[in-house]
Amino acid sequence: MLGNLIGPEINELIAARNFSALREAFVDWSPADIAECITDLPAEEQAVLFRLLPHALAGDVFEYLDTDAQHAVLRAMGNVDAARILNDMSADDRTGLLEELPGAAVAQLLQLLSPEEKAIAQSLLNYPEDSVGRRMTPEFISVRSDWTIQQVLDHIRAHGKDSETLNVVYVTDERGRLIDDVRIREFLLRPLETRVDEIHDSSFVALHATDPEEDAVNLFKRYDRNTLPVVDSENKLLGIVTVDDMLDIQEEEATEDIQKLGGVAALEEPYMDAPLFDLVRKRAVWLVVLFLGQMLTATVMGVFEKELASALVLALFIPLIISSGGNSGSQASTLIIRAMSLGEIKLRDWWKVMKREIASGLLLGGLLAGIGFLRIVVWSSWSDSYGPHFVRIGLTVSVAILGVVLWGTLSGAMLPLLLRRMGLDPATSSAPFVATLVDVTGLIIYFSAAVLILRGTVL
Amino acid sequence: MLGNLIGPEINELIAARNFSALREAFVDWSPADIAECITDLPAEEQAVLFRLLPHALAGDVFEYLDTDAQHAVLRAMGNVDAARILNDMSADDRTGLLEELPGAAVAQLLQLLSPEEKAIAQSLLNYPEDSVGRRMTPEFISVRSDWTIQQVLDHIRAHGKDSETLNVVYVTDERGRLIDDVRIREFLLRPLETRVDEIHDSSFVALHATDPEEDAVNLFKRYDRNTLPVVDSENKLLGIVTVDDMLDIQEEEATEDIQKLGGVAALEEPYMDAPLFDLVRKRAVWLVVLFLGQMLTATVMGVFEKELASALVLALFIPLIISSGGNSGSQASTLIIRAMSLGEIKLRDWWKVMKREIASGLLLGGLLAGIGFLRIVVWSSWSDSYGPHFVRIGLTVSVAILGVVLWGTLSGAMLPLLLRRMGLDPATSSAPFVATLVDVTGLIIYFSAAVLILRGTVL
Repeated sequence: MLGNLIGPEINELIAARNFSALREAFVDWSPADIAECITDLPAEEQAVLFRLLPHALAGDVFEYLDTDAQHAVLRAMGNVDAARILNDMSADDRTGLLEELPGAAVAQLLQLLSPEEKAIAQSLLNYPEDSVGRRMTPEFISVRSDWTIQQVLDHIRAHGKDSETLNVVYVTDERGRLIDDVRIREFLLRPLETRVDEIHDSSFVALHATDPEEDAVNLFKRYDRNTLPVVDSENKLLGIVTVDDMLDIQEEEATEDIQKLGGVAALEEPYMDAPLFDLVRKRAVWLVVLFLGQMLTATVMGVFEKELASALVLALFIPLIISSGGNSGSQASTLIIRAMSLGEIKLRDWWKVMKREIASGLLLGGLLAGIGFLRIVVWSSWSDSYGPHFVRIGLTVSVAILGVVLWGTLSGAMLPLLLRRMGLDPATSSAPFVATLVDVTGLIIYFSAAVLILRGTVL
Repeated sequence: MLGNLIGPEINELIAARNFSALREAFVDWSPADIAECITDLPAEEQAVLFRLLPHALAGDVFEYLDTDAQHAVLRAMGNVDAARILNDMSADDRTGLLEELPGAAVAQLLQLLSPEEKAIAQSLLNYPEDSVGRRMTPEFISVRSDWTIQQVLDHIRAHGKDSETLNVVYVTDERGRLIDDVRIREFLLRPLETRVDEIHDSSFVALHATDPEEDAVNLFKRYDRNTLPVVDSENKLLGIVTVDDMLDIQEEEATEDIQKLGGVAALEEPYMDAPLFDLVRKRAVWLVVLFLGQMLTATVMGVFEKELASALVLALFIPLIISSGGNSGSQASTLIIRAMSLGEIKLRDWWKVMKREIASGLLLGGLLAGIGFLRIVVWSSWSDSYGPHFVRIGLTVSVAILGVVLWGTLSGAMLPLLLRRMGLDPATSSAPFVATLVDVTGLIIYFSAAVLILRGTVL
């Protein structure tokens, strides 16, 4: 990549707190780079810098700070500076800041807004959390269908300054209802006297303000758009959302899914910023649930204590057998959960999935069973740790592995579908259920195989 | 969402193969919806439909089909139709199709391209897989810095038709080197006689054609752009990449990470499309590696067989103890690996991570140890399955749980950092290493605690 790199001079200026020289240096920089560069300064000094930077640039840089830093800088600023920054922020970024703050701080900051901006901020905060309304900005260009391109371009030149994007222009009727979205290229490529209604085709895709964020991501992906309009239930155009916000939403969602699959309740903050207590609490919940479930294994083992006492050799393979079941189960549930969240698998596909997983489970289980049998037989040729009946013991272990892997694969694959069917989130609940189920039933399978195969010899 | 919904009439037209009526119906539809609607038709009938649709629309619809469907339709088409579609495709989508096909099919399709398009397609395919060059399109608008806005807009109207986007215009010098990128809004908001060099600031961000795709995603996120220019080593502008492709790349990457964390080599196709044999092979690799590692547990158990024989009660808690270690280890490695792949944790943070995880491990281990102790003591008040020394046994199990959870947490957190330090991919290798390491050492910790605490009583 090109772009500005933080050279040693800048670090010297920062170290020397030479703010006026920094101001000169920063004027040619991109806002994202400036934000990164000042991120380690104390909030008070950041506030000084923001006061020195040209207004427009200061506003842009501020939007690239993370929410905590934004709040700290606002607190370090005088009311006049803070009001200017807040009023200049684009509405969606401002919502992103306000929704993270406690109620008292929000009330305080809202007081700094102009009546008009305050009304916008409040109406956006009224939409449900993680809804499209929270990510939208009401700054767009709308035109009428009887205008010419010349009129559209004149309108943009006069009123486009505050619009979040000029890449798409919205055609609305006299009551503000959305008729069409037209990309700016359609205006730029045609003669100036063309009328808008000669261009537009009344086919558009729009989001509702109350739609969940994930729907927005999916719609952007499906239609390859950079900007989508947001309407209310009467099709009135409320605002727009832009694709750059979707990258962040998609990343957050993937992180949540990954954390849930790893058996951690989703963290709300980056790992390093999360307070230790939160980190422990979010992990403790699932660890305790799993632990309580796993206690059943001790109970099951107790039931088979007599068999264990007469053939202690059986104990040696317990970790191997239950971990094979656990591993094959977590493979299957990971694959199915991810495929479900990408929409590749629907509930109605359950039978197809089941057939594939039975085949996979038999193949994988057969492979591991074979390896396990070989290990026991080969080992027994130079050691007598498995006794004279080592072939039968090898057979018992192999049958158990085949059964446990097949069962692990099958339950790992079907449980997410079952949980979804019951309206639960498969990512949250599958891993612990599968682990406990497979470990407990794995022991039962193992000891049942032992009773059948070893009766009359070791048992 | 609004937009076109597939009504029963359309399904009837499809069922009746009434292609000319379908053509009429489809003309107002968005290409993504048409692609979805025809996706279940046989390739031959899709080819008929493509021939009936207006040329531009046919090309757009084709780009929304997945690669397999695209290839099938091309094979079902005559050479003339296939050539038209291929020559009309935008260069980045065409690369996406060609890179998935076997060499012979690529050679065949390249023959259908015009000499100019063929040169473009070949040069893009020359960039490494998963590099920015493969995702780029050479169709952009470039202008000179001494032009006026009027000249720029005239140039766009004359030559902009094939450009992938008109949202950003690139300023280049006489040798094609990139000087600046200017958003179209800068031209639309200023008087027509303004010169380009009055607008541009020579500060731009660009990708290199050989940069990996992930770098592109990160740059788009960092700078909130919709389009980024791609240059060669001499700063010559080669093409552009657009943000809508980034959503797909980001999703693919998250899917790979999730599959790797679940112990599956990353699938190249959606779950339902992957051949069963591939699916089994990708899972078998890790299952076998894990299985071979887990065989060590049988060896370790063999070492402690004497202790096990004198205190069979110890066997009952083996699954509980090793699964606690495994669960806490997989929590820690999931958190750390995701945080590393988001750039939240760097290698130099290892000591901070270690401190946090020691604290977490002690707290979580202490919690589970307490629950385990209570369970054994309470249970023993109405059952004598744990014998007269149940308090010592409870103590042994608790100490083992504390040790195993602490060790699981710590190795789960530190191993990914160590693997990264050694230049390996933490997502691929951590899960199996952690699982095996923690299971084997967990047994050693458990039996060592037993020897220390139970000597002279049960042992």
